[in-house]
Amino acid sequence: MYDIILKKREGKELTKKEIEFFIDGYTRNEIPDYQAAALLMAIYFKGLTKKETFILTDAMRNSGDNVDLTSIAGIKVDKHSTGGVGDKTTLIVGPLAASCGVPIAKMSGRGLGFTGGTIDKLEAIPGFKTVMKQQEFIDTVNTIGIAVIGQTAHIAPADKKLYALRDVTATIDNMGLISGSIMSKKLASGSDAIVLDVKCGSGAFMKDFDSARRLADYMVEIGHSAGKKTAAFITDMDQPLGRAVGNAIEVKEAIDVLKGEGPDDITDLSLKLAAYMVFLGGKSNTYNEGICMVQKNLKNYKALEKFVEFVEAQGGNKRIIEDVNILPQADHKVEISAKNEGYIKKIRADSIGRAAMILGAGRQKKEDDIDLSAGILLHKKIGDNVTKGEIIAEVHGNEDNGIKEVLEMVRDAYKICKDKPKKTKLIKALITSENEKIY
Amino acid sequence: MYDIILKKREGKELTKKEIEFFIDGYTRNEIPDYQAAALLMAIYFKGLTKKETFILTDAMRNSGDNVDLTSIAGIKVDKHSTGGVGDKTTLIVGPLAASCGVPIAKMSGRGLGFTGGTIDKLEAIPGFKTVMKQQEFIDTVNTIGIAVIGQTAHIAPADKKLYALRDVTATIDNMGLISGSIMSKKLASGSDAIVLDVKCGSGAFMKDFDSARRLADYMVEIGHSAGKKTAAFITDMDQPLGRAVGNAIEVKEAIDVLKGEGPDDITDLSLKLAAYMVFLGGKSNTYNEGICMVQKNLKNYKALEKFVEFVEAQGGNKRIIEDVNILPQADHKVEISAKNEGYIKKIRADSIGRAAMILGAGRQKKEDDIDLSAGILLHKKIGDNVTKGEIIAEVHGNEDNGIKEVLEMVRDAYKICKDKPKKTKLIKALITSENEKIY
Repeated sequence: MYDIILKKREGKELTKKEIEFFIDGYTRNEIPDYQAAALLMAIYFKGLTKKETFILTDAMRNSGDNVDLTSIAGIKVDKHSTGGVGDKTTLIVGPLAASCGVPIAKMSGRGLGFTGGTIDKLEAIPGFKTVMKQQEFIDTVNTIGIAVIGQTAHIAPADKKLYALRDVTATIDNMGLISGSIMSKKLASGSDAIVLDVKCGSGAFMKDFDSARRLADYMVEIGHSAGKKTAAFITDMDQPLGRAVGNAIEVKEAIDVLKGEGPDDITDLSLKLAAYMVFLGGKSNTYNEGICMVQKNLKNYKALEKFVEFVEAQGGNKRIIEDVNILPQADHKVEISAKNEGYIKKIRADSIGRAAMILGAGRQKKEDDIDLSAGILLHKKIGDNVTKGEIIAEVHGNEDNGIKEVLEMVRDAYKICKDKPKKTKLIKALITSENEKIY
Repeated sequence: MYDIILKKREGKELTKKEIEFFIDGYTRNEIPDYQAAALLMAIYFKGLTKKETFILTDAMRNSGDNVDLTSIAGIKVDKHSTGGVGDKTTLIVGPLAASCGVPIAKMSGRGLGFTGGTIDKLEAIPGFKTVMKQQEFIDTVNTIGIAVIGQTAHIAPADKKLYALRDVTATIDNMGLISGSIMSKKLASGSDAIVLDVKCGSGAFMKDFDSARRLADYMVEIGHSAGKKTAAFITDMDQPLGRAVGNAIEVKEAIDVLKGEGPDDITDLSLKLAAYMVFLGGKSNTYNEGICMVQKNLKNYKALEKFVEFVEAQGGNKRIIEDVNILPQADHKVEISAKNEGYIKKIRADSIGRAAMILGAGRQKKEDDIDLSAGILLHKKIGDNVTKGEIIAEVHGNEDNGIKEVLEMVRDAYKICKDKPKKTKLIKALITSENEKIY
């Protein structure tokens, strides 16, 4: 291990044998944390080549189970977002793609930070169960075309252990390590193709386009090198996605989208992600044909019907699509008004995310409970015109959850200016292993 | 601690509070090894400023006891070598400086690597004891002017812990960390002034002059900032110092030097180091006056007499100066002859050091025992003329100690060429806090 640290410290490329020695030994607790930490910091400074990243990803993937989805017919397509504020696309694109015949056998995670993850959000639906035996999971996908559960299998334990160490040693920020961490879990989860949504902006891990593009590039190449069709969208996270930030209120917004009544940005992005899943899943000949298919299934409520089937199959109360009031509701709903008139120029996604976390919509530590009813509704978004005193946002919270502190944070997250700001692009790029399209 | 790692990773200067937080917490086992390892690797890449190094050194020094030598009258002068092959100067300069009236109250270490340290070498003298109670140590210095013992006090435990971690995480090589490690122990040892011998060349930690000069510069400034007069010689370690490499045979050579019969290089260096100690100890007005004083005390055997007093005071058999055969003797003494005629151009100090270690003269691991009788005598040194078949070196070893392997190593360490090589300078520079003199 000493020689491996030294080699990386000197900026040399590690061999397959060396990387596997490290991952195997570290997973089996034979290599101590302090040597792993030194190596991680050397990697931070000297980087990982793509070749090293592929090997590392593969070694982490093989440190645990590889989920076998071969008993599900068709090309299973997975979807992953690098995480942002107000990102409830999985709840929409899953049913959308499934309604077009793409089998969705997805394992999702809980959230840490701003708001809950997909699994937390789904648990806001009364009765919805996110735990299933492997066979039940497969049977559900074979029957209705979709199932989304929490990670049950022993997926990439090396990544889990390594991520926990990176988290306390300031060694998160490295393209090879980040992409390896995400992709090791995706590859082990058993789908045949992957559509990635790499968020970019103040509310995302990647703050600028260039780093988002590099991450997307790494992940697409890892997927490709593992024999899985992989594509990555780079999408805006400078302001939250949609208008709802929380858990129950995000479920409500997802239903709105499936009813054709959701905000434009989240609707547009969901359609595009789902369309690419349809294309990679072999259900359309082109991405554009996929767009037409998902647009059609949104309009004719096939996607909404699939959502209902999905909720019902996993024990959830399907009446939520008629009566969203059966979702958890916060005791207090406090409106925030504009300090002055003008155009919304900015809504700092990170501030909104932190405010949501303080309300209890997200976890500060892994062990924390989530308040599913808490959250923030953004009535105004970038480009909207407001008059002084007009309601711009609404905070949903319960007692003891520091609503007053949050009100200030949300108000400060908004920047209002006199001139109408330029529209920012929601979808900035689409990167596949064959080409890169910058919008 | 996370924020401290991050700050150093970003190349920023740490504050006194931050460095002390780290050293205190690490010493008390409140900061885990993995976070310390990550910080060390960040320091490897981003370095430590001199200010940070002073603070780190001071924090490590104060992590344990500070030896109180105030009950010894006069300016106590310490001497430290960064380590090389055949370096037995402490055995010579101690008595030399003491014979000129400089109180020497020195704590020395055992060796790891090539050969034993000063303490190991002293233990080759029958009866010599290197353990003393603090009061006995002080009394001895007050009575005869010199005592050299193994480290008894709880000196710089933070450095001990940190060094062990650096050793297994490839984070030894950093000027700030190296100089802080050496100087924290020197400062805690209680002397008022320090003369450093920074070795430079194939057998030393610092391979080239520039890095040796940087290290010397750091250490002199640390000493100065701690209010102790400090000077550093940079001396050659491209070939071993003197002719003896081992433990007992080095003691014999030290006695030869004190008798005025030793090799020129070790005699010359010992006189200069001792002279600077005399100067810093206030026993001469200038360094040159110090040179005259030590030369005189070598010629009139005052230094040799002081050595006898020193050996006797610590329980050793003083008859060794008349009969060196009472030192441990190896069973086998094998001569090595020159393969061809010419001039000795090179003697790789690192190869000779490794050969000595294989013979048992040095430790591979801390727990290893040392064979005090084993070693290598270099009959020929750089610049000497040899005929084919002439004896160039002699290996002293005991059974099972792989003498055959060593013979080849020693032979290969010698490079013989036709032309007389240029003389290399033994003393390359003298660095004080006021000026730098490059020879």
